[in-house]
Amino acid sequence: MKAVLAYSGGLDTSCCLKLLEDQGYEVISVCVDVGQPEEEIKEVEEKAKLLGAKHYTIDAKEEFVKDYIFRAIKANAQYEGYPLSTALARPLIADKVVEVAKKEGAEVIAHGCTGKGNDQFRFETAIRIKAPNIKIVAPIRDLNLTRAEEIEYAKKKGIPIPSESKKWSIDENLWGRSIEGGELEDPNFIPPEEIYSWTKNPAEDREEEIVEIEFKEGVPIAINGERLGLVELIKKANEIAGKHGVGRIDIMEDRIIGLKSRENYECPGAILLLTAHKALEQLVLTRDILRFKELVDSLYGELIYKGQWFSPFREALDAFIDKTQERVTGTVKVKLFGGSVRVVARESEFSLYSREMVSFDEKDLDQREIAGMVKYHCLQDLLYYMRK
Amino acid sequence: MKAVLAYSGGLDTSCCLKLLEDQGYEVISVCVDVGQPEEEIKEVEEKAKLLGAKHYTIDAKEEFVKDYIFRAIKANAQYEGYPLSTALARPLIADKVVEVAKKEGAEVIAHGCTGKGNDQFRFETAIRIKAPNIKIVAPIRDLNLTRAEEIEYAKKKGIPIPSESKKWSIDENLWGRSIEGGELEDPNFIPPEEIYSWTKNPAEDREEEIVEIEFKEGVPIAINGERLGLVELIKKANEIAGKHGVGRIDIMEDRIIGLKSRENYECPGAILLLTAHKALEQLVLTRDILRFKELVDSLYGELIYKGQWFSPFREALDAFIDKTQERVTGTVKVKLFGGSVRVVARESEFSLYSREMVSFDEKDLDQREIAGMVKYHCLQDLLYYMRK
Amino acid sequence: MKAVLAYSGGLDTSCCLKLLEDQGYEVISVCVDVGQPEEEIKEVEEKAKLLGAKHYTIDAKEEFVKDYIFRAIKANAQYEGYPLSTALARPLIADKVVEVAKKEGAEVIAHGCTGKGNDQFRFETAIRIKAPNIKIVAPIRDLNLTRAEEIEYAKKKGIPIPSESKKWSIDENLWGRSIEGGELEDPNFIPPEEIYSWTKNPAEDREEEIVEIEFKEGVPIAINGERLGLVELIKKANEIAGKHGVGRIDIMEDRIIGLKSRENYECPGAILLLTAHKALEQLVLTRDILRFKELVDSLYGELIYKGQWFSPFREALDAFIDKTQERVTGTVKVKLFGGSVRVVARESEFSLYSREMVSFDEKDLDQREIAGMVKYHCLQDLLYYMRK
Amino acid sequence: MKAVLAYSGGLDTSCCLKLLEDQGYEVISVCVDVGQPEEEIKEVEEKAKLLGAKHYTIDAKEEFVKDYIFRAIKANAQYEGYPLSTALARPLIADKVVEVAKKEGAEVIAHGCTGKGNDQFRFETAIRIKAPNIKIVAPIRDLNLTRAEEIEYAKKKGIPIPSESKKWSIDENLWGRSIEGGELEDPNFIPPEEIYSWTKNPAEDREEEIVEIEFKEGVPIAINGERLGLVELIKKANEIAGKHGVGRIDIMEDRIIGLKSRENYECPGAILLLTAHKALEQLVLTRDILRFKELVDSLYGELIYKGQWFSPFREALDAFIDKTQERVTGTVKVKLFGGSVRVVARESEFSLYSREMVSFDEKDLDQREIAGMVKYHCLQDLLYYMRK
Repeated sequence: MKAVLAYSGGLDTSCCLKLLEDQGYEVISVCVDVGQPEEEIKEVEEKAKLLGAKHYTIDAKEEFVKDYIFRAIKANAQYEGYPLSTALARPLIADKVVEVAKKEGAEVIAHGCTGKGNDQFRFETAIRIKAPNIKIVAPIRDLNLTRAEEIEYAKKKGIPIPSESKKWSIDENLWGRSIEGGELEDPNFIPPEEIYSWTKNPAEDREEEIVEIEFKEGVPIAINGERLGLVELIKKANEIAGKHGVGRIDIMEDRIIGLKSRENYECPGAILLLTAHKALEQLVLTRDILRFKELVDSLYGELIYKGQWFSPFREALDAFIDKTQERVTGTVKVKLFGGSVRVVARESEFSLYSREMVSFDEKDLDQREIAGMVKYHCLQDLLYYMRK
Repeated sequence: MKAVLAYSGGLDTSCCLKLLEDQGYEVISVCVDVGQPEEEIKEVEEKAKLLGAKHYTIDAKEEFVKDYIFRAIKANAQYEGYPLSTALARPLIADKVVEVAKKEGAEVIAHGCTGKGNDQFRFETAIRIKAPNIKIVAPIRDLNLTRAEEIEYAKKKGIPIPSESKKWSIDENLWGRSIEGGELEDPNFIPPEEIYSWTKNPAEDREEEIVEIEFKEGVPIAINGERLGLVELIKKANEIAGKHGVGRIDIMEDRIIGLKSRENYECPGAILLLTAHKALEQLVLTRDILRFKELVDSLYGELIYKGQWFSPFREALDAFIDKTQERVTGTVKVKLFGGSVRVVARESEFSLYSREMVSFDEKDLDQREIAGMVKYHCLQDLLYYMRK
Repeated sequence: MKAVLAYSGGLDTSCCLKLLEDQGYEVISVCVDVGQPEEEIKEVEEKAKLLGAKHYTIDAKEEFVKDYIFRAIKANAQYEGYPLSTALARPLIADKVVEVAKKEGAEVIAHGCTGKGNDQFRFETAIRIKAPNIKIVAPIRDLNLTRAEEIEYAKKKGIPIPSESKKWSIDENLWGRSIEGGELEDPNFIPPEEIYSWTKNPAEDREEEIVEIEFKEGVPIAINGERLGLVELIKKANEIAGKHGVGRIDIMEDRIIGLKSRENYECPGAILLLTAHKALEQLVLTRDILRFKELVDSLYGELIYKGQWFSPFREALDAFIDKTQERVTGTVKVKLFGGSVRVVARESEFSLYSREMVSFDEKDLDQREIAGMVKYHCLQDLLYYMRK
Repeated sequence: MKAVLAYSGGLDTSCCLKLLEDQGYEVISVCVDVGQPEEEIKEVEEKAKLLGAKHYTIDAKEEFVKDYIFRAIKANAQYEGYPLSTALARPLIADKVVEVAKKEGAEVIAHGCTGKGNDQFRFETAIRIKAPNIKIVAPIRDLNLTRAEEIEYAKKKGIPIPSESKKWSIDENLWGRSIEGGELEDPNFIPPEEIYSWTKNPAEDREEEIVEIEFKEGVPIAINGERLGLVELIKKANEIAGKHGVGRIDIMEDRIIGLKSRENYECPGAILLLTAHKALEQLVLTRDILRFKELVDSLYGELIYKGQWFSPFREALDAFIDKTQERVTGTVKVKLFGGSVRVVARESEFSLYSREMVSFDEKDLDQREIAGMVKYHCLQDLLYYMRK
């Protein structure tokens, strides 16, 4: 009997690996590369070997950008201020794990999530949809293990224990980095500089920089005039914005089950690209679309957060979004300094502002024509107060 | 026959003053102090005297903060990224002008707006509601005057002409400063440093600062532990945030009649206070309320923008908002540097996160209880794909 | 050890009663009268006696109308076409049961809901909020009993078994009647006439009737000019509308856990009063409020459905709603016939339509004033197509 | 110089015809057939001939159903209870008039709308977008003519005057019939039976009828099993529903400029088809989509009402809607009697309810799995009240 395990190399999933073995499974571990640090990928492979699992590493970076990050950009996707880096990668990871499970003829897919978090919802929903007939198990949750119990078990099984000095729990992919744990859970604790890795200390920035982002049909295609491959473009955006301390996020987040938790992220590239994208939309979309798309975007962010990526609802929202993005083509210039990203110029062949329009304005607009519109503005409010 | 004129001392309203005289009106000019620079108020008074009008200056700063700015904070009010400084003051100015008109027994209220802008909607709607029986005239618009024609007329009437060097058209009050005109109209023109007056150049900031804002029932009551009067608090917020270059805004804005225009603002205090207010709401409001209030806030910003302040719709939205703000009490710490304002800590007696809650979490939460919830998450999406 | 049981007299709750006894509890059964048939209340009391429980019957009809139904009317509350009769009574029943539990010093509150339905969510949420420290048990669900197992247990314990002929499962209160079970579950099965009890067969109606409903601040106060007590008014509305076959509802409903189920209701009074209420709102509320209130109403219906009655969200929505209802005062005439209820006339002192307004219209409206408004209507759409 | 006139044969447009002649135009009149009574089309042609205009009659019925009515059905389009018959036809009429104007090389397009109504917005917006360079004139509005003045002018010019007995102003097309004027304007006046023409008196109905509507991808394709051509299907729907008095609508309507007016419509086919369409959506769409589509539908109805048919906003909403309609395929049975239309059964290969699902439910659902979900339901509300 084979079990395919979404394997991150951490304590939780390493315990899962051995717990599955205990239950008689032949364990196949899978690590999906969505832009984690290369050393991390290596370590995962070595640990899998050490623990005796057959291991797959699957490079999904290109797919992650094309089919996930680009959709997120078009939707200005965020949840309570968080650009959804981890959440966005989960359905893709699940999808790849299912592929391996099918190839290997596995009867079980396992994940290491505990029962308090969001990822159990994201993984299981995606797995169940992609493979309705494969059984899902979550050993840590199913045994209701505490961290202390896990460590004890790990010692017994020869699983490497994370050093005490590892104070923070980190998750990284191309779209961002999340930092959790310890004192950071206290909403009133000011995060120390050491938790950041992708962003320089903003207060040490000494030189502002103007960056130009070019978009075509809603997605970025060039930075400072240089066309870049999908993965390179996202990396470049992270690098440039990170240099100026852009993208540090500190929020109170409402988890799927309703607990509030304090979360810290750094998402320099995401903040840079989303800011520029929104500015371009302001130039080329009509007010009606801008206003309604705010709501669509908000729902889109929420559905990513709660793991509803594979759903007819997302497909239908994407149909709306894609239609609106047909003209989101042009360039935006932003100033980066000291943690701030500020739009300073934008241009598009589809601009709804333009010289022609100004001249349309000046030639045709007899100011007196507007007087009637002003007079009937808010007519019902006037009637309302006259009724008093 | 008396005409009361909302008088700013600028070319438009000065021409109005004389045009009204030409039409046989005894002109009473009114300047409502909502936080313009003191010199400006003085100049207005002198010009009114020079042009021979009976003049009123009305100090409405306290009322502006209490009844307008504080409501805007509770509603996180903005329109396309703009915290609505000018728009927010217009109904108050109209209200005060109506008071003078009633006191003076005037038959006409006049304003200097042209036919392309937003303020004609805001002034006239408010005036019409507050005084349905007084006639409104807008001499510049009604005569369809161009700027060149105004200057010619002004010369003839001894109205001081603004110097050529005055490149930008400015509007200032306690809640912000707007800068328009000339090259700034081009969406792709990068604004020069000279247009800013309230904010230091962010790129020259060398020292970050942590500021603590205290709120009670949704409104700020103290900065860095110091309780301040209403007007002083807003001024202090502008000063602190301005020192770090916070609050520069550069957007494409959809005007009421549908033209897109490029707008520049600096609103340091507004950005500081709104950022802190939203962070506190994240701590104390339930997810349902947060999500729905986003929409309420968006509509609230829009109604301010389009001059619908005096309306049963605003009153009903305020009933909702006020109810939600009963527990928006606590403190927020933000870091200011280089144009960025970043929340780093928050605290409240009404926090929905807290030690008790964590212990509630740990003691009561058997992870296995969540498994069923995970299984039925997005059930209909699963059924949908099974139907394929 | 005392357990208080929300007792309906049916098989589920009767089994609960005995199961609790088996577990050593002294059982106190509570029946909350929210308008069930009087015979039913009697039967419940007799059964409780037979099974040896201390029993309370609590008349909450007046409170149900005043604090629940009237709020639902002001909010035009429905969920997918269902006026929420059962859902609306659940929190009130829970509240009363908690009162008894506190009075009796009980350690446990029990309900008879199974694990597939909505009521478990509604009861437990309300109980937990009203009594966070009392333990909740749901014996049928906790033992995962099937109907067959229940019947077997009932026989053993001397619990009366419902006759085979009782084909439908019914729930009734003042606000409506639900009918479930058997063939009715099939979405394509046409319901037989026999399932209806409150409504005459519409196809046998031979005489139309005009009914006048009078509202004050959003709630009905008189029918055909006759002022009625709260409970009487609702009963009267059911009787009149039922006579004409009004209020039969047949829908596909999305249950809380995501299952779709086919549901049949009859809610004659609710449909009559809600139809009239909405018509009056159309007369007195401004368009902005009408449009936004549609959304508020929809969310309000949904929160009732999912058992979120006791929540700060409902309180805040009610603040909005109550503000809008201040002027929902006036009369509406509807025609009832053959299952249809059709508004034919409406009148209010706060009407935003009125003779004065028409004369305002005719005197003041120079048609040419509107030409400019027409010209700038949808300006951005024009610009959009000109850009192609 | 040629002027193309959208010609209805009524007093307003007949006066326009002659007024345009007075101004030296060669007038080309156009009547677009969107399902008016055949006699009316004939009369229009004869009048045009009598008044000396070159006349076009354009049969656009098929296009009206395919590109307009079917979109409206997919969007469940209505505005304040009105299924938008007149509003929906206006952009199509404008489009056809523009085609003639281009073919004829006309310099002017004229319409007969007055300055109080909605149609001026609908016609002009559509014409301006389809032909930005053609001048639009509205002679009645531009001359601010009253009805009395029109009649005087008509007498002078030999234009036939409508008889005094013609009490109501009627507009008819395939999708519905509107009746306005005289006493009907009073919101409290009960409409007399004589105003109805498409619907029999509901109170005289003596026999109920069950009708089956079949849909494919959101649009109706058959009635009672009979496949019908586009135009025939709509006519058949009107006929069947009209026979049972279905589709009489009596509402207070908020016009574009903000006046409230009382409106009467009869739209039997629209009400029948929309009711059935919504019932089928309940069966096959997920809850998320149903809920969000309510909002999309509401905005869609509003944009039709205000004449925004040709707009990127509609195109983007249609992209969403079309995606959702891919599975709206199946049949719905409704009962018609006495003015009421009541869904009694529905069926679809894409049903999210089904036997399989029930068995899925029964086999897999261990009731205990749900207990945790119930426990964490509305968790934040509980925390909120515990904080009190």
